[in-house]
Amino acid sequence: MEIKFPLILINFKAYPQSSGKKSVELAKVAEEVWKETGITIAVAPQLTDLALVASQVEIPIFSQHSDPVTPGSRTGHVTLEAVKDAGAIGTMLNHSERRIRADEIDVIVKKAKELGLITVVCANTPEVTAAMAALGPDMVAIEPPELIGTGIPVSKAKPEIVQDSVKLVQKVNPDVKVLCGAGISTGEDVVAALKLGTKGVLLASGVVKAKDWKKAIYDLVDPLLK
Amino acid sequence: MEIKFPLILINFKAYPQSSGKKSVELAKVAEEVWKETGITIAVAPQLTDLALVASQVEIPIFSQHSDPVTPGSRTGHVTLEAVKDAGAIGTMLNHSERRIRADEIDVIVKKAKELGLITVVCANTPEVTAAMAALGPDMVAIEPPELIGTGIPVSKAKPEIVQDSVKLVQKVNPDVKVLCGAGISTGEDVVAALKLGTKGVLLASGVVKAKDWKKAIYDLVDPLLK
Amino acid sequence: MEIKFPLILINFKAYPQSSGKKSVELAKVAEEVWKETGITIAVAPQLTDLALVASQVEIPIFSQHSDPVTPGSRTGHVTLEAVKDAGAIGTMLNHSERRIRADEIDVIVKKAKELGLITVVCANTPEVTAAMAALGPDMVAIEPPELIGTGIPVSKAKPEIVQDSVKLVQKVNPDVKVLCGAGISTGEDVVAALKLGTKGVLLASGVVKAKDWKKAIYDLVDPLLK
Amino acid sequence: MEIKFPLILINFKAYPQSSGKKSVELAKVAEEVWKETGITIAVAPQLTDLALVASQVEIPIFSQHSDPVTPGSRTGHVTLEAVKDAGAIGTMLNHSERRIRADEIDVIVKKAKELGLITVVCANTPEVTAAMAALGPDMVAIEPPELIGTGIPVSKAKPEIVQDSVKLVQKVNPDVKVLCGAGISTGEDVVAALKLGTKGVLLASGVVKAKDWKKAIYDLVDPLLK
Repeated sequence: MEIKFPLILINFKAYPQSSGKKSVELAKVAEEVWKETGITIAVAPQLTDLALVASQVEIPIFSQHSDPVTPGSRTGHVTLEAVKDAGAIGTMLNHSERRIRADEIDVIVKKAKELGLITVVCANTPEVTAAMAALGPDMVAIEPPELIGTGIPVSKAKPEIVQDSVKLVQKVNPDVKVLCGAGISTGEDVVAALKLGTKGVLLASGVVKAKDWKKAIYDLVDPLLK
Repeated sequence: MEIKFPLILINFKAYPQSSGKKSVELAKVAEEVWKETGITIAVAPQLTDLALVASQVEIPIFSQHSDPVTPGSRTGHVTLEAVKDAGAIGTMLNHSERRIRADEIDVIVKKAKELGLITVVCANTPEVTAAMAALGPDMVAIEPPELIGTGIPVSKAKPEIVQDSVKLVQKVNPDVKVLCGAGISTGEDVVAALKLGTKGVLLASGVVKAKDWKKAIYDLVDPLLK
Repeated sequence: MEIKFPLILINFKAYPQSSGKKSVELAKVAEEVWKETGITIAVAPQLTDLALVASQVEIPIFSQHSDPVTPGSRTGHVTLEAVKDAGAIGTMLNHSERRIRADEIDVIVKKAKELGLITVVCANTPEVTAAMAALGPDMVAIEPPELIGTGIPVSKAKPEIVQDSVKLVQKVNPDVKVLCGAGISTGEDVVAALKLGTKGVLLASGVVKAKDWKKAIYDLVDPLLK
Repeated sequence: MEIKFPLILINFKAYPQSSGKKSVELAKVAEEVWKETGITIAVAPQLTDLALVASQVEIPIFSQHSDPVTPGSRTGHVTLEAVKDAGAIGTMLNHSERRIRADEIDVIVKKAKELGLITVVCANTPEVTAAMAALGPDMVAIEPPELIGTGIPVSKAKPEIVQDSVKLVQKVNPDVKVLCGAGISTGEDVVAALKLGTKGVLLASGVVKAKDWKKAIYDLVDPLLK
């Protein structure tokens, strides 16, 4: 599947607001905004909701995590094949709340290419972002953990971290697109992120915890429509 | 939810034969046999298929794994709340392919009781089975890893491991029911397991990899109908 | 090696005050008090200091941790054989700062018996303490993590946790001796711990961070001399 | 401490042949060869032997592993400060037998620079080697795990893996020196490794399991003396 950039990737995390049946409701709201605006809005539901959500909407679905294992006797693990069978188009990897090792990411990224799945590898510093880019995923996402969930956007609070990441990735592997996350909640934050050289944003609480999901997503994409 | 024993718990593991849409198909076959025989047949689909399968069948659904974390900023983790929201009635824990620590199991077992979820904790030796029983789950499942997937049933090959486990659990915490697994594939194996003092079996490849799922499940429950 | 109870086990953790050469100095002070009083005082230096400390003193030395692996290609791991070769008499396991899984503890405890090494398995709740006792180590140590390093002794602040642990261990495996830890720093705390049915204490900052090590250790053993 | 290249780094792993007192004996043999030839021979003893070995020889000592934690309440962990206090000049990280995560390596590498310690980060593929180089350690060591302990030298069996690693590291971070390992046991292997652009080798069984340690080490350095 080809992704049209910029990309707004909404991570449902393990929030109660987007769990179970509510995961489908939120995904449908995201789908509506995509249909109305044409801006790519992808969602990453909880692992347990993955196939259910993918069966209900047409927008791109990502797994929040995958394990570096092959199908078979792997109770409790998430194979890339399961992610694909569930109907997702790719997987997030190495989120600050679910780090894995570089050799594991290397295995998953290589296998995702074979399976036609998209990989988004998270990182916490410019150096780690560059390291992840060296593994050749489709995208890396720089997210300083100290800003996650704060509402203080990384694109404003620490623009140099985003710029340094973009610059290092450009040097290490220019095919890899950079997203940024942490504290993103408004269209202004998104525009700031794109100006710093990213191709999109990764966010969670800014949408999931909003009282009006549709309004929250429109707030993000609005400046991109002008 | 009350479970009627004996219990046949089918673990889908990460087998390609029971992944994605096929997880629903297999669960429906299990449901048919339950409806036709009244024997409790529960299934543990892949994490990614959990909510989808639970939305399609009425038999008891278990998660293959849960993490000792609460809802919130827990990307890529499986909370008990997510398991419940997905429509499952409980969770397997500590399978030999996905071990966790005793203090984590302690947290999950206590919280599962609050949420009304059922816990099945796997173990590999009589001593570890006794240790897991000390944590007070609903069930423990003794599975010598060396027999898993072999077709050589633990109830025949190592009856003393099952007997020792039953005896130790009886001493440590008689409220905890014992299942056994590893190599189970026929009704004869199930009967042997029940005679050793267990309340049911845990199995995977014996059903999932069978050419005719319905026949394979009937093979298991048949001697229980007489 | 036979241990004479009560036991005072001083965990050096990764404190700078007891690192490198200072680990030998502190161990020698502990040895002096043992020679002067006959009370068993054991020490658990940092992993990196283990063989050095053991080469310099005659008191019992414990490793702070061991891995469930056998000698060979195991870079960066701590085998029981290495612990023994280093001159230690046993190992702590599953400290709240270095938890391992029950199946791993099962392997290590069984192998330690073959090698003649002593095992002290830590736990955080009465239920986990009982679970660890089911694995048959020489000792378990109940340490509520929330009291560790506070100076508030578990034997006074939460006597019921110690009592419940002693009672459950007595039921599960009466051969296993119970220690308690967390917040212990005075002889009064030690006496309170022994009255609750323990055979000794595990402590760290109360001695390591004391300005006068000898005085701090004498404070602990003093009431035992009367 | 400055290291003079080429570097022969002997990893003692958890081999019984180099455990406890024997770790000191082997380190002394390495020291003799260094004194007689001037070629830098460094050793990485078991964690438990680190301070003891460092107290007995003058050659460079590396820890086999370090944890990304600071001194304090860190039972069973290896801090960089402990490594330094033990008398080592640096640490290996991320050996195939003891992998850690990229964000952890990032933390350790940055802190090692502050403490004046040298870091050698292992990797299994050219891509992971490049990723590790992006984190800015002093050295990376490419070791295809399938050749470790085989006696089949990577420098001969898979020269392209070494060359690709050298090339990628040159692009990502030319300040980082490349070592190679796996299957190295003769001077010919060392020369082949240096010709491929590395600055030295990492080896283990080739020396540790040799009947005559001195001869084995001389076999390695001999071609470098001509």
